Amino acid sequence: MKLEKFEEAAKKVKEVTFPTNLIFSEYYSQKTGNKVYFKPENLQNTGAYKVRGAYYKISTLNDEQRKKGLITASAGNHAQGVANAARIYGVPATIVMPTTTPIIKVNRTKAYGANVVLYGNVYDDAEKKAYEIAKVNGLTFVHPFNDLDVATGQGSIAMEIFMELPTVDIILVPIGGGGLCSGVATLAKLLNPNIKVIGVEPKGAASMSAAIEAGKPVTLPSAVTIADGTAVKTVGDKVLPYVQKNVDEIITIDDSELIINFLDIIENHKMVVENSGLLTAAALSHLKVKNKKVVSILSGGNMDIITLSSVVQHGLIAKGRIFSVSVQLPDRPGELLRVADVIAKLQGNIIRLDHNQFVSINRNAAVELRITMEAFGPDHKQKIIDGLFNAGFNPTLVMTSDFY
Amino acid sequence: MKLEKFEEAAKKVKEVTFPTNLIFSEYYSQKTGNKVYFKPENLQNTGAYKVRGAYYKISTLNDEQRKKGLITASAGNHAQGVANAARIYGVPATIVMPTTTPIIKVNRTKAYGANVVLYGNVYDDAEKKAYEIAKVNGLTFVHPFNDLDVATGQGSIAMEIFMELPTVDIILVPIGGGGLCSGVATLAKLLNPNIKVIGVEPKGAASMSAAIEAGKPVTLPSAVTIADGTAVKTVGDKVLPYVQKNVDEIITIDDSELIINFLDIIENHKMVVENSGLLTAAALSHLKVKNKKVVSILSGGNMDIITLSSVVQHGLIAKGRIFSVSVQLPDRPGELLRVADVIAKLQGNIIRLDHNQFVSINRNAAVELRITMEAFGPDHKQKIIDGLFNAGFNPTLVMTSDFY
Repeated sequence: MKLEKFEEAAKKVKEVTFPTNLIFSEYYSQKTGNKVYFKPENLQNTGAYKVRGAYYKISTLNDEQRKKGLITASAGNHAQGVANAARIYGVPATIVMPTTTPIIKVNRTKAYGANVVLYGNVYDDAEKKAYEIAKVNGLTFVHPFNDLDVATGQGSIAMEIFMELPTVDIILVPIGGGGLCSGVATLAKLLNPNIKVIGVEPKGAASMSAAIEAGKPVTLPSAVTIADGTAVKTVGDKVLPYVQKNVDEIITIDDSELIINFLDIIENHKMVVENSGLLTAAALSHLKVKNKKVVSILSGGNMDIITLSSVVQHGLIAKGRIFSVSVQLPDRPGELLRVADVIAKLQGNIIRLDHNQFVSINRNAAVELRITMEAFGPDHKQKIIDGLFNAGFNPTLVMTSDFY
Repeated sequence: MKLEKFEEAAKKVKEVTFPTNLIFSEYYSQKTGNKVYFKPENLQNTGAYKVRGAYYKISTLNDEQRKKGLITASAGNHAQGVANAARIYGVPATIVMPTTTPIIKVNRTKAYGANVVLYGNVYDDAEKKAYEIAKVNGLTFVHPFNDLDVATGQGSIAMEIFMELPTVDIILVPIGGGGLCSGVATLAKLLNPNIKVIGVEPKGAASMSAAIEAGKPVTLPSAVTIADGTAVKTVGDKVLPYVQKNVDEIITIDDSELIINFLDIIENHKMVVENSGLLTAAALSHLKVKNKKVVSILSGGNMDIITLSSVVQHGLIAKGRIFSVSVQLPDRPGELLRVADVIAKLQGNIIRLDHNQFVSINRNAAVELRITMEAFGPDHKQKIIDGLFNAGFNPTLVMTSDFY
């Protein structure tokens, strides 16, 4: 990957990208002691950075290749990125998706004008099929990450970061297969060799850490993480050398950290970021430096709304802001009022009450009351539990699974 | 309100605002046949436009007034706007909040360095108290909307819109008490008398429509709407003449429309917008023109996360994307499998199953199964219901209240 190509790509992608200006985060800056900026690619055209690499890739093809068109295999952001880039360039695109792909993703990809082929049960089958079709019809296969032109296109993000914040010290970039990471890191080091580039990957799919250790791509036995966009078992062999050379460090992140950061970004920045996009936000708390200018690349925002709703609930529970206790009450009038009084005085907000009259034949502990409450955080939660205890209710903390 | 003052305000507020560049909405443009842009004040400093008016107001005070400081009464965005504006200007601020204000809002206001006084059970008591304290201590009361300086500050939004999109045809602006609306409309007409400014208010608190009809502010018996930021019973008498003169039309919006637009913006723009901020997005479907350049002002994004979670659920139900059916099954092996098979073939995604073995002593309809499913929308929902019917299950649609 060369500087001239990065310059070309940075100009070219402007034809298809939305401006995603850096957002200074007061919340994360205060929390981490650095000056934190987000590069919000969740607000990008198609909801993710993928459209950059695909669009630049098309621009590197000759007329004949373009006329024949592109093909790829994907059920995620790459599918929409390629489909939309091709539409805007006026080039036909075929996307092979596993038959198990939710119709809503199929429809969204079709809406960008792509020809969708459903094939196979898993991604590997779909990819194999895509290569086959590419060969037979002379189409250009656009790999989601293991392609130096695609990676160069993604690298345009680094150019934009430097144009807005030339004094940046650290760039945090998510890692799946290594396309985004290699492009951003390579250009960043070309622009300023003193900058630090830190890759971030999910603990459950740390294929880049494994590759760096082995000195070559290795295939993980599994890739289990809610960060589905970066759940890659084998990183790309073409981009790996660029990561080895230009990425200074890799941080791995637990799924549980993503859930908490999802809430933090919703509440403090009013934005939805998908799980893979949250890796770099979660990594901010892992940095050992202070007072540095740090840019976190939020890579995408395509989270389906049911997952979103579930992540919100898990996040509230994880942050101690929703919790349930079980108390056993004597079966006599006024007991519920007493409990309610304790909770009200401590400003707990009851959002669900389950009442079970038949747990025991002992009239002094005959009613089980399960109370789900909203608190301001772990300290307030503990205060309410202590308050119930001191009032003689002997509360037991129970798992909260739902609260409506 | 004068052009010179608007120019002054537009410059002054830059010291405290984040840039909120217009966002072109492909989704709403396609849906409504206009070219739709959002002015995302939900991404503004403090999560709402309120900081503009408060900051400009301070700049109009003399040194002595500033030294004494500001006071206001509010439990919402205005509290944080005044607190943060005062902090950045280096001016003391007192915010009187009703004692019923959630601690989290109290804490957030305190975090901006304001002195918080808790007083009274409702807003009116707190406001009365604030005027009292203002009089005794010589503080400047900053009214949330009925103040021409405050309104001039809010008007800076119109200046920014024209700088980015001088060819704008229509501006949609939410109405609560009339501060934002009068400022934006007055400056817009000064910049281009041909522009159309349309105010949007909630049906349950249409105090501006009432005032326009009566020719003076009238007090509504109630203000009931989920758009809490615009739930105002009496509009401001000082700003009303500017609204009468410069607003061309008022559209009123049902709460149910807000819920649907909340989901549309989350899914298509990855942003959280609070209910009052959604008024102008909902109004887009009410426009009778086509091919116009329309700017919707999304006024804020401060929605607490529990409300957010609940709005998401209601939105999914309202859009036919979550629904529950009840079927009664004979109590024999294999029946659940048959139901599951019908639903799977029609691509319904089961997200909750409630099974009740004891609804009847009739062995042929002894088990009630309540199935909550995800569908792609009303058509798909109907297809699944029809499929269950044709397979002999006689499904009954039931209310969905929760789905985890």
